[in-house]
Amino acid sequence: MNVSGIKILAFDADDTLWENEPMFRQAEADWLSLMSDYGDPETLYQALFEVESANIPVYGYGAKPFTLNMLEAGLKVTGGNLSPAIAAKMIEVGRNLLFNPAEPMPHVVESLEKLSSSGRFRMIVLTKGDLLDQEQKLHRSGLLQFFERIVIVSKKTRKEYLQVCSDMSFSMDEMLMVGNSFKSDIDPVLQLGGSGVFIPFRVLWAHEHMEPYSHPRLVTLASIRDLPAVLLG
Amino acid sequence: MNVSGIKILAFDADDTLWENEPMFRQAEADWLSLMSDYGDPETLYQALFEVESANIPVYGYGAKPFTLNMLEAGLKVTGGNLSPAIAAKMIEVGRNLLFNPAEPMPHVVESLEKLSSSGRFRMIVLTKGDLLDQEQKLHRSGLLQFFERIVIVSKKTRKEYLQVCSDMSFSMDEMLMVGNSFKSDIDPVLQLGGSGVFIPFRVLWAHEHMEPYSHPRLVTLASIRDLPAVLLG
Repeated sequence: MNVSGIKILAFDADDTLWENEPMFRQAEADWLSLMSDYGDPETLYQALFEVESANIPVYGYGAKPFTLNMLEAGLKVTGGNLSPAIAAKMIEVGRNLLFNPAEPMPHVVESLEKLSSSGRFRMIVLTKGDLLDQEQKLHRSGLLQFFERIVIVSKKTRKEYLQVCSDMSFSMDEMLMVGNSFKSDIDPVLQLGGSGVFIPFRVLWAHEHMEPYSHPRLVTLASIRDLPAVLLG
Repeated sequence: MNVSGIKILAFDADDTLWENEPMFRQAEADWLSLMSDYGDPETLYQALFEVESANIPVYGYGAKPFTLNMLEAGLKVTGGNLSPAIAAKMIEVGRNLLFNPAEPMPHVVESLEKLSSSGRFRMIVLTKGDLLDQEQKLHRSGLLQFFERIVIVSKKTRKEYLQVCSDMSFSMDEMLMVGNSFKSDIDPVLQLGGSGVFIPFRVLWAHEHMEPYSHPRLVTLASIRDLPAVLLG
């Protein structure tokens, strides 16, 4: 990858700067355990997944949709007999997702420091999700100091990338996006002439799946630790 | 108000372009009726309001937070004995809030048409709330054609107005904001040197209350019908 023309580094947040998906997996496990009288884990998981899939167009992503999905799926698998004590626990499990400490993953701070102090790049966060939740995670993370701005969108398709370009007066060939979702972080950016650094995380949300492909403007890394070397040489 | 320097018109969405708060009031009434075995309306409303107030910093605003608040308050006033059938109804009441048809209020379309066809202004929507919900309401409203862009933020304070200025390369004295919330739409804009058209709606969310004041760059109108006359003479 030729990095000489890169002027803007855009970072995904969840599962790129801090862990997020594992908390949702734990919440799913908590839900399965709360519902364990009503079916085997596989059947129960399938019921939750179906409710989630059906509700994405209405509720979108994140902790609040997930909480509502747990309740709806709970009502469904109990045939409308969900106990109020269990409903209350689901609300609590979902609410706790909004208190993700957003502690930076290993090597995030040192890598952002190196890239920032090089003075070579404008650095932003470009993430999808719930406005308030993402803003609060960024505050908690302690990483705000590294970023010129935070852009939160409901989805990351070509349109949203082009809007950021226009707002910040750069062209897509000057942008490099760093993220863990090939579908949201990498593919649209490559298609628009930008560059990508794909850092797969150990857990990927089923709804984000896309088969990665090779591309001259794409580098895949095992850790953000290696990002400064790629960009600064 | 001297309008000669105004180049950007920013419109609030909920209760300025279409009705929104009345649907929430109806949902509140539905909740009170679902809970009517557990107290008088005033006590019940107070319980819901307390849960809402406590949850704003965590959940934010909108239909999904309101649904979770109805459930939490329902569990509270029933002493943890909320019937699953009633919980399911609350989820349905809340979900329906996400299907606001967002039909433009009277005179909205004709006013936007006049202002747009004058060619004198750049026109945007600047609204707070849930990303996905606001995007979907704008699509349903049929008003997207009038706006150069849609900006959705978690709150409307000076910071967010300055960001829009910077993104779209204008200065605050070139901006006029049209909205029904003095606190979110008018006060911060006037403080930053912009102009405001305050169009109070018949219902205001209790959390949005602020006492209006007079200002040389502020006009108060009874209806958006009168906006073209103010701006185009």
